[in-house]
Amino acid sequence: MKDTEEIINALLKFRDERDWGQFHNPKDLALAINVEAAELLELFLWKNHDEVNKEKLKEELADVFAFAFLLAEKCGFDVKQIILDKMEINSDKYPLEKSRGTAKKYNEL
Amino acid sequence: MKDTEEIINALLKFRDERDWGQFHNPKDLALAINVEAAELLELFLWKNHDEVNKEKLKEELADVFAFAFLLAEKCGFDVKQIILDKMEINSDKYPLEKSRGTAKKYNEL
Amino acid sequence: MKDTEEIINALLKFRDERDWGQFHNPKDLALAINVEAAELLELFLWKNHDEVNKEKLKEELADVFAFAFLLAEKCGFDVKQIILDKMEINSDKYPLEKSRGTAKKYNEL
Amino acid sequence: MKDTEEIINALLKFRDERDWGQFHNPKDLALAINVEAAELLELFLWKNHDEVNKEKLKEELADVFAFAFLLAEKCGFDVKQIILDKMEINSDKYPLEKSRGTAKKYNEL
Repeated sequence: MKDTEEIINALLKFRDERDWGQFHNPKDLALAINVEAAELLELFLWKNHDEVNKEKLKEELADVFAFAFLLAEKCGFDVKQIILDKMEINSDKYPLEKSRGTAKKYNEL
Repeated sequence: MKDTEEIINALLKFRDERDWGQFHNPKDLALAINVEAAELLELFLWKNHDEVNKEKLKEELADVFAFAFLLAEKCGFDVKQIILDKMEINSDKYPLEKSRGTAKKYNEL
Repeated sequence: MKDTEEIINALLKFRDERDWGQFHNPKDLALAINVEAAELLELFLWKNHDEVNKEKLKEELADVFAFAFLLAEKCGFDVKQIILDKMEINSDKYPLEKSRGTAKKYNEL
Repeated sequence: MKDTEEIINALLKFRDERDWGQFHNPKDLALAINVEAAELLELFLWKNHDEVNKEKLKEELADVFAFAFLLAEKCGFDVKQIILDKMEINSDKYPLEKSRGTAKKYNEL
């Protein structure tokens, strides 16, 4: 079994044991991703990278992944496929010769 | 090869072809996750779930995943492992008998 | 008239001329604040402070304020009062002698 | 004195008593706005509007305002002025006849 499938299966088992599927509509899952992303961000607030607690970083990043996987599953998306598809789109937005070595956004290139 | 590894390899290739690794410190990667999470959220703004454009949803969710995988790679985390570890922590915070069927946070159970 | 009232009146006039009040429920206003906050944050992505476009900063910060004022109005809050009240709560969380010169969160002091 | 000035003065006093000005660069203030906006958002997670605790809502919205005012002050912006200026820009993006009664974004009108 693919490991993205194993991840999703584990998350669904956890969710269903608690009967939480009823709350997991796409809008609230998108909210949850934002809430978890901000908890991850808070670890870096007023700090440099090297001052961040690595155990907490693991936990907060895991929370972001968890809700992202749950939203993907809810919408029937294949995680690897949507990432590869988006990279193809980004290849057009960020052609090699224009984007190399610059952090500019595509509309400023 | 595991599919999480394939995802990360594809992302690193895309990044390195553009020489973007120099910008990808953990703090800015956490920022990027937040920026992408909010673009995902914006699709739902003033709307119900069923009114959301599914193609855009795929793209925005893919962006969240991309920076989450890049941050995991930067920190040397195994994505499946940190998610499984976090679920174990959450099992203690949300014991079955207390958390079943309620959306309450663990500190309100 | 107080200038916070003038701000709110101008925002309500803009909203009502477009008949947007129907969309402005508290949950979506909170979403909108997050979306605008992330657009503000994006200005700083991969950058230092001094590289940020000041005109865009003005605009994005104004958007955060706009939805924050609209949510305050929707809930019947007096903006000055809730800020002063919160500072009183924070005075207890961050007593002078413990919090001076440190960026630690109250639960780590 | 204008009440936006009173708010800013109170916030600066609180900040300076704790010698926190050293941490308050614009980038981290933008981060702080995002962190607080997400704590506000979390109150609505998995919920309808009427289920939200109003006292907590006051506190979290106050935190968003506090960092927004501090960022405005740090950048030398007049809060009322930047909001009025942004509304003028938005008047062009959202002309009355096109935007009335619709929640569509300006680029979809």
